[in-house]
Amino acid sequence: MQSKFWPDQIIRLIEQLGISHPIIQAPMAGGPSTPELVAAVSNAGGLGSIGAGYLSPEQIEAGIRKVKELTKRPFSVNLFIPEISNTVEPDDKVLKKLEEFSIELGVGPPEVPGPPKYTFEDQLAVILDNDVPVFSFTFGVPEERLMKKLLERGIAVIGTATCVEEGVLLQEAGCTAIVAQGSEAGGHRGTFQATAGTPMIGGLALVPQLVDEVRIPVIASGGIMDGRGIVASLSLGASAVQMGTAFLSCVEAAVPGPWLDSLLSSKDTSTVLTNAFSGKYARGIKNRFIEEMSSLENEIPHYPLQNSLSRPLRNAAKEKGDRDFMSLWAGQGVAMSRKCTAKELIDMLVSESCDVLERLLVP
Amino acid sequence: MQSKFWPDQIIRLIEQLGISHPIIQAPMAGGPSTPELVAAVSNAGGLGSIGAGYLSPEQIEAGIRKVKELTKRPFSVNLFIPEISNTVEPDDKVLKKLEEFSIELGVGPPEVPGPPKYTFEDQLAVILDNDVPVFSFTFGVPEERLMKKLLERGIAVIGTATCVEEGVLLQEAGCTAIVAQGSEAGGHRGTFQATAGTPMIGGLALVPQLVDEVRIPVIASGGIMDGRGIVASLSLGASAVQMGTAFLSCVEAAVPGPWLDSLLSSKDTSTVLTNAFSGKYARGIKNRFIEEMSSLENEIPHYPLQNSLSRPLRNAAKEKGDRDFMSLWAGQGVAMSRKCTAKELIDMLVSESCDVLERLLVP
Repeated sequence: MQSKFWPDQIIRLIEQLGISHPIIQAPMAGGPSTPELVAAVSNAGGLGSIGAGYLSPEQIEAGIRKVKELTKRPFSVNLFIPEISNTVEPDDKVLKKLEEFSIELGVGPPEVPGPPKYTFEDQLAVILDNDVPVFSFTFGVPEERLMKKLLERGIAVIGTATCVEEGVLLQEAGCTAIVAQGSEAGGHRGTFQATAGTPMIGGLALVPQLVDEVRIPVIASGGIMDGRGIVASLSLGASAVQMGTAFLSCVEAAVPGPWLDSLLSSKDTSTVLTNAFSGKYARGIKNRFIEEMSSLENEIPHYPLQNSLSRPLRNAAKEKGDRDFMSLWAGQGVAMSRKCTAKELIDMLVSESCDVLERLLVP
Repeated sequence: MQSKFWPDQIIRLIEQLGISHPIIQAPMAGGPSTPELVAAVSNAGGLGSIGAGYLSPEQIEAGIRKVKELTKRPFSVNLFIPEISNTVEPDDKVLKKLEEFSIELGVGPPEVPGPPKYTFEDQLAVILDNDVPVFSFTFGVPEERLMKKLLERGIAVIGTATCVEEGVLLQEAGCTAIVAQGSEAGGHRGTFQATAGTPMIGGLALVPQLVDEVRIPVIASGGIMDGRGIVASLSLGASAVQMGTAFLSCVEAAVPGPWLDSLLSSKDTSTVLTNAFSGKYARGIKNRFIEEMSSLENEIPHYPLQNSLSRPLRNAAKEKGDRDFMSLWAGQGVAMSRKCTAKELIDMLVSESCDVLERLLVP
């Protein structure tokens, strides 16, 4: 199903990416974006994305292989740009609280992790060597020599910005397009350059300001759940949308039961910004862990240390099906979640977008 | 200039309000919305709004009279719903900080105010008695008997919601329409019912969720600065938009020089949410007062006490032209501000909206 409505701004980007609809499935590292989900999105004419930030090079290669078995269409792989490590020892109050929770859940005490077993460059090498059509990233900008390698191989490169300043840096680095991450978005903030704190700019304000300042296509993200959000984003000047939460409740996504239940029973006020799980601010559905850690907000060690410290708790919670200690990432549109296949969702999104445009026109 | 594009959802509301374009100038209490601005907006086919929250009954009556001299078109008057007063004594650390600033600015120490000289009902009586076509309000819901009086006189009544729950309460109270205040909005949050804190839901997520839950028209607000924001809002299901910051830089608005300069030189990251000025959370451009008070966020007394305590400082800052102690209210779209007349702005908004719609359609 092809829309007759997509205008020039959109045609340019979808042709560049080789997709049919201006709809990108957000990477969602940590499990949800299975090869089945990625391939189903791409097969339906969108761009599926492997959220590979937490994966080893071997896992990334296996993921790419699996996706290629399931689709001949373009897809993307997303990585995290490493940050200069924050070497402080974890705060005692934070450790104590985590230990209390560990005892409650019957897992060992939190341990400060050893050095990582692979680097960002090891991960990126897999992408460079495996004929990946689109590379996307968040939390920074790749070094110039790495950007050069990506672009030399004809890989489309998509960065993530939470404010105009970051978007300009991504354009200067040579990106093909920029995801504008509005404050509505679920999961981690992509912020890497804000002079003060974590910008929380709503999409209605962020997208047009970024469009005005850069020449490359802007992809709107955050709170977009249906055709209304898509047409709104395109009206703001975006060339496509990236949707995460909307794909979380697709049958191909790997989302533990309590998380899925939370998605399907949430309200507009259910999500909150928290640094409790990873040390980096992210939006998720409120639960006991977020609430009890909130008084320690300023003591929580920065990413990736807190992420390692809280991992045993999160893994145990997943196994037990305990929503109180899981990271229930979701955006502010979560209450509009629908349970269906990825193909059904994309077909609905395209058809709804056409309906919205037709409704806006008086005959 | 009438658009051929406005669809049924919009026609219904603009006919009900008696206006030509689905554009409402936000009330902006405290000075900016002069009778000249209100009348210019209404004369240009939008709905001008008197921000009367801080005005005495006599001042409100004079404002209405002046607006009626300048326009025969509909306009609105906006009031604050009073909240149960928080009778705590101001915190010593807050008082001490305010005293330091008072000395610096050469004004007397902050004084706890006496009882108010007029009530909300005194203010409302002026609206009931002066043939006001539209009444809008924020910070709550009027009592049932007052809503009855308003509706009996054929006055259109518009409430303000920051989450779906509040919108449903406003519909139940008999409102004609609801302003959905997105997190992007400048000035005070209209929150009155949130079970936890101040909902900060971006418009892209808030508007469609509210539209799905109520039968009455929804008016989008927050971060809307041009035709792109208008068409985006209508795509989300809104029947009109309410714009504040965009009208602040109109020549008819009364905005002190340093505030206007700040509006015209801001970036997407310039605004912040603060309770420092009034005790109620509001979005404004960062300055020294906001920054230095931020460590006392949890000690600042609730509205209206903090508003009274900080008033001498704000007034002195206005007189001196000192941006560091003024409340520089602005939304997240502030960097898209344009200096022009209200009529020029509305003509541009309508023409831009038509352009956006045409651009979205492939011929």
